[in-house]
Amino acid sequence: MNSFLEQYVERITGLDMEASRAEAVYIGNLTVPPGALGKLESLAVQLAGITGQIKPSFEKREVIVMAADHGVCEEGVSAFPQEVTSQMIFNFLAGGAAVNVLARQAGAEVVCVDIGVNNDISHPSLVSRKVRYGTANMAKGPAMIREEAERSIETGIRIVEEAVQRGVSIFVTGEMGIGNTTASAAVMCALTNTEPREAAGRGTGLDDERLKHKIGIIEKALNLNAPDATDPIDVLAKVGGLEIGGLTGVILGAAANRCPVIIDGFISSAAALLARAISPEAAAFMVASHASHEQGHRLLLQALDLRPGLDLDMRIGEGTGGVLGLTLIDAACRIVGEMATFESAGISGSGAPEQP
Amino acid sequence: MNSFLEQYVERITGLDMEASRAEAVYIGNLTVPPGALGKLESLAVQLAGITGQIKPSFEKREVIVMAADHGVCEEGVSAFPQEVTSQMIFNFLAGGAAVNVLARQAGAEVVCVDIGVNNDISHPSLVSRKVRYGTANMAKGPAMIREEAERSIETGIRIVEEAVQRGVSIFVTGEMGIGNTTASAAVMCALTNTEPREAAGRGTGLDDERLKHKIGIIEKALNLNAPDATDPIDVLAKVGGLEIGGLTGVILGAAANRCPVIIDGFISSAAALLARAISPEAAAFMVASHASHEQGHRLLLQALDLRPGLDLDMRIGEGTGGVLGLTLIDAACRIVGEMATFESAGISGSGAPEQP
Repeated sequence: MNSFLEQYVERITGLDMEASRAEAVYIGNLTVPPGALGKLESLAVQLAGITGQIKPSFEKREVIVMAADHGVCEEGVSAFPQEVTSQMIFNFLAGGAAVNVLARQAGAEVVCVDIGVNNDISHPSLVSRKVRYGTANMAKGPAMIREEAERSIETGIRIVEEAVQRGVSIFVTGEMGIGNTTASAAVMCALTNTEPREAAGRGTGLDDERLKHKIGIIEKALNLNAPDATDPIDVLAKVGGLEIGGLTGVILGAAANRCPVIIDGFISSAAALLARAISPEAAAFMVASHASHEQGHRLLLQALDLRPGLDLDMRIGEGTGGVLGLTLIDAACRIVGEMATFESAGISGSGAPEQP
Repeated sequence: MNSFLEQYVERITGLDMEASRAEAVYIGNLTVPPGALGKLESLAVQLAGITGQIKPSFEKREVIVMAADHGVCEEGVSAFPQEVTSQMIFNFLAGGAAVNVLARQAGAEVVCVDIGVNNDISHPSLVSRKVRYGTANMAKGPAMIREEAERSIETGIRIVEEAVQRGVSIFVTGEMGIGNTTASAAVMCALTNTEPREAAGRGTGLDDERLKHKIGIIEKALNLNAPDATDPIDVLAKVGGLEIGGLTGVILGAAANRCPVIIDGFISSAAALLARAISPEAAAFMVASHASHEQGHRLLLQALDLRPGLDLDMRIGEGTGGVLGLTLIDAACRIVGEMATFESAGISGSGAPEQP
């Protein structure tokens, strides 16, 4: 890792365990049976540990949609043509994509970043931070060079630093990049020693034959490039993608700024795996949102020890599941912010022996 | 069934299949890969079938919290004392319970109904429709007489009819009643031929020994009362509860008024089973919300063919999971209401052979 990244990740420290413990005690006094609010309780405890506050709230929220292209598309690994990456960016910027619609519902801003689209695009609202014009075809050589991989992570970090200056206190990961389930599956295989046939899914709609082909391409890329499982930058450079690196940076940046970061679907989870490999402490700032329909996502969530609250069979990415996850954040915050305690409501405690 | 109920349920007819089909075609043109929005798509198709509208929306929403007591509590089947039912009602009315907090987030009103609390309570905001002072102990005889069971269902129906007059267009089921997981498990066993040890759970926090005792009580009640599985009113009367009957009525009332009704947790799902047994057509108006942590709920959801989008390990009832489910309704409505189409956004279609 270069010296900027090395120094930056030193800023990431673990949760405020005292605040987490105080939150757990506080929740124990709310007018619900012990543990009855399930994942909303564990989420509240995590948010207290992240923020140091018993009654946290997150006003300004952004979903960072990192967009990039993938050279491996020339192998025919996606159901959609590569130009859809740019077309969808303009859809995001016009507010018409699924992530825009669901972000409006959650009160979140959509920030769209060109971190590696393979043609020149511009728009007043587009954040242009192109690291390179798409990756190279990983089935023929490394997707990018090491410096580019590092630069993609730095780009994500800087996007977060700028957002924090604007007052953003919670982040959602999102992405667009035709071919990026292939790169994400390769990253997952390299870091978790999973077989390509377990990691690779149908993406936006491959049939059986094309899925088999995609698995073969991932195997080929892994064999050819031999990414070093102990070196996340090497994995990102050889079989990753620019948007995956960007999101790795978003996650590290959020963790360094003690902001929760909601992990969307399969691609975002691959970035989370990289972020954790770079900084194990960053894992404490990740919040699960949904289990997607993409084959491999459940395994990947298990590897990340993330337990999502949403199970919607979605397989679209963009940050769609992530912004829906903001509802669960809000629910957890309202529970600890607004609920009555047994004492304030004058309610008898449980007769169970574990209760005083 | 009495003649009121018999005539009422004749009003319930199935979905508008033409609207559902038109919705599916409309969704096919949105800027997402086919099927990529998963359960949000099937929800949108269902909502179109319920309302007849391609772009439905639900402004006025209510969670109907039916509260009642259970004579079977004297057998020691709950971790909490019975007076908690009334205490929690005042907590609902003061706005301090979990359901209030989450309903505020979802923009829903909480309507609390005393349909069978076993003491006299009053409050300006409480809807007092007591059918009787709690059920009798089903371990010693029927929980109530047949006429009371019918009256509890009618009460739920009338509550919905009044709400529809106020402009409410979507309902969430909620309940409060110490002991009601026991009654709900008994209803589930009677109607689905499930074993009590599979249906019964820890409720608000029983330990292993008390869970075993609870299972024994359910077995005893089923053997003693021998509810007729082909007669839902008989099942409700012998081993049910007044709030369960009330919610059965809420579901039937919503279906008759072509309003979606979001089914909360285990108790609400038992009511849904009764509603479907009374009117199979009513099932089409039920919307799943969450899979609760209560043992038996997943089996019960399977029996109902409901596939929830939330998986939060909650086991509190009240309508808490149901009001969170409103977020998914809103998401589905926004998707069809606000998203761009491939044509409007100028985006290339899928290269998959099944796409034109």
